[in-house]
Amino acid sequence: MGGDLLARAHALDTADPLAAFRDRFVLDEGLVYLDGNSLGRLPRATRDRLRHVVEVEWGEELIRGWDRWIELAREAGDLLATGVLRVRRGTVALADSTTVNLYKLAAAALDARPERRTIVTDDDNFPTDQYVLQGLAAARGIRLRTIASDLDAGVSLPAVREALDDDVALVCLSHVAYRSGAVADLVEITRAVHAAGALVLWDLSHSAGAVPVPLARAQADLAVGCTYKHLNGGPGAPAFLYVRADLQRELRQPIWGWFGQRDQFAMAGTYDPHDGIERFLVGTPPVLGGYAALEGIRITADAGIAAVAAKGRALTGYAIDLHDAWLAPHGFALASPRAATRRGAHVTLHHPRAGQICQALKAAKVIPDFRTPDRLRLGPAPLYTRFVDVYEGLHRLREIMTSGAYTQFPEARSRVT
Amino acid sequence: MGGDLLARAHALDTADPLAAFRDRFVLDEGLVYLDGNSLGRLPRATRDRLRHVVEVEWGEELIRGWDRWIELAREAGDLLATGVLRVRRGTVALADSTTVNLYKLAAAALDARPERRTIVTDDDNFPTDQYVLQGLAAARGIRLRTIASDLDAGVSLPAVREALDDDVALVCLSHVAYRSGAVADLVEITRAVHAAGALVLWDLSHSAGAVPVPLARAQADLAVGCTYKHLNGGPGAPAFLYVRADLQRELRQPIWGWFGQRDQFAMAGTYDPHDGIERFLVGTPPVLGGYAALEGIRITADAGIAAVAAKGRALTGYAIDLHDAWLAPHGFALASPRAATRRGAHVTLHHPRAGQICQALKAAKVIPDFRTPDRLRLGPAPLYTRFVDVYEGLHRLREIMTSGAYTQFPEARSRVT
Repeated sequence: MGGDLLARAHALDTADPLAAFRDRFVLDEGLVYLDGNSLGRLPRATRDRLRHVVEVEWGEELIRGWDRWIELAREAGDLLATGVLRVRRGTVALADSTTVNLYKLAAAALDARPERRTIVTDDDNFPTDQYVLQGLAAARGIRLRTIASDLDAGVSLPAVREALDDDVALVCLSHVAYRSGAVADLVEITRAVHAAGALVLWDLSHSAGAVPVPLARAQADLAVGCTYKHLNGGPGAPAFLYVRADLQRELRQPIWGWFGQRDQFAMAGTYDPHDGIERFLVGTPPVLGGYAALEGIRITADAGIAAVAAKGRALTGYAIDLHDAWLAPHGFALASPRAATRRGAHVTLHHPRAGQICQALKAAKVIPDFRTPDRLRLGPAPLYTRFVDVYEGLHRLREIMTSGAYTQFPEARSRVT
Repeated sequence: MGGDLLARAHALDTADPLAAFRDRFVLDEGLVYLDGNSLGRLPRATRDRLRHVVEVEWGEELIRGWDRWIELAREAGDLLATGVLRVRRGTVALADSTTVNLYKLAAAALDARPERRTIVTDDDNFPTDQYVLQGLAAARGIRLRTIASDLDAGVSLPAVREALDDDVALVCLSHVAYRSGAVADLVEITRAVHAAGALVLWDLSHSAGAVPVPLARAQADLAVGCTYKHLNGGPGAPAFLYVRADLQRELRQPIWGWFGQRDQFAMAGTYDPHDGIERFLVGTPPVLGGYAALEGIRITADAGIAAVAAKGRALTGYAIDLHDAWLAPHGFALASPRAATRRGAHVTLHHPRAGQICQALKAAKVIPDFRTPDRLRLGPAPLYTRFVDVYEGLHRLREIMTSGAYTQFPEARSRVT
């Protein structure tokens, strides 16, 4: 059985059209890294670009570097728009953190529906999304309606439909659920939200760079996401925001700053926002992290999101097969959708001792992550993870379970997602 | 006259207690860089630290790097607090951009004085500060009262007193004015604001790392600032915020995010902010820019802010003497306070052709900056600028004026401050 599974891994790697992309990353043989869904690996081009930005542009060009850096939010945004999200140029910008972007766009949406007094989200949405919406609801004295979702299967269209009424101003959901990797039906949910007269704001943190995001087909209104997971932008890389072109002039975000100003360097005393996506910018952008994000985005754009998503589903499908063969007998259970089209690029397993098992895996040079209280997430990134890496990682996991080695480790806490 | 002035520069350099700090920066001989007030130079330690953070911590430690990175906002904040601003540990954090921090703290202050409906600022405040306050005033339907200041002399205590009444919730001003470098009387203005029952929010972007900031003596409430100017944190480095210790639990900022959550990795569904300065954090912090800021802050802390400020005043005083001797005859006029104790670390000159002159200076390898419509700012950073550099830069400026070389250049636009 193990032999067949290994032969299958080798065959899949041999046929992999993305195999060469692995060489574009800094790798360390021996480590099985299955946490690309938390922090993507360092691209070689990023390492080189950052040396140049720091040592030549900052070090030598100094303030003159701003002639180039001033374009970064749009340059990276346009590459993400056209190369990954497949939306129009001028609808995406790199800026701030995901949380700050969520706040800006959610507030702008609520201001555009002042007569409506309900926000809808679901309890499977990432905590920071829930907190932002709680804060906005509290500040405005409006209602936050939280759908109870199946935490292994994501938010369902019927559940969203049931939560909609003519008091709903905004629906904010994650496209790919951070716990389970379940993919929400972005097109149909957006259609239902629009039919109810509300705006929709999608969090793409776990889907941008992992699966196709049908923003354009859905005519979705708003989106945000991070670049440090599947887009390999580096730790704390700036986030992005998307605003559909025809909505941009209608919406005004609440944090008025000089990078949103129409004629920024006139230094005028009165705020007059840019007509385009720049009106959703605020302050001086993080240049170092921004160039790291740009280089990371470029790799996904080069590979093509369809190929990335296809390999992602094959990798997680293979991991599920290994789970069924090796891990289910040790008390694991699948905490992600079994249907490939319902999964993003990570797969999650339940086990009551997941915290200890995660520590034991790290000691065995396998890096997954742990989601409290009982989930082990495996994110085999399509751009640099081979099927044999999945085999090797789960083989070591089986050894840990067979030997009981995990019982020596303390219960662990979750870390940054 | 020129000979005397040069001899004086050499004497001042010989006696300079900070002379050795110049070696801690990446330098290029031949360039006279007088724009440290816009973007500080690259420290050698930062270059090395960034290589390590990128290539070892991200490249090899991967997600495990968060065990260290999670402390960065506080680590850098505490160093800035104790080493530069001379306030208590736990009152400063590195986060977001200056503009986002202004928004968070101004909104928190307004929420703490709900019965008052006026914000006070002045027209010498940096544009982004004015925009943020305009946005908050518009969203809340309250008044923004803008003091008309002398743009060469900064905001005065009597003008602030006149703007105060019992409807004022918040006064937001810059400690050192971005145009003129004039230093506001932080202690007496804070006292007057407190006597009126309002809160004060200081923008320290042009003073942190340039002059002592008497936040502690003044018992000032709130402050924000950037790290990419006098603190040499690099392009777009994260900003900082300060909240007086006894105010922290009373204030709640509007952008509720997971980095402000008391028990962040419990991933609870309900926002429950941290008791300390962390409650003013929002989303995932920019790690690369954050470590650059940390290393930059460390140099100022090592040098001591008193020594830095003393040299800053001597450098700008020397520049004023050169102006009087060489430039006033060519139509320049001082646009900064003449009294050394009233100046920060930059000095500004008026000239009706300042835009063209700035271009000519850059062509002559002297980097100042231009502030529309007629100001030339000179920021001789005390940590790496010698008196002979000021001599050389202004000597080239005199040549440009004598030869009329500037008339060949187009009128320029301001760039990032």
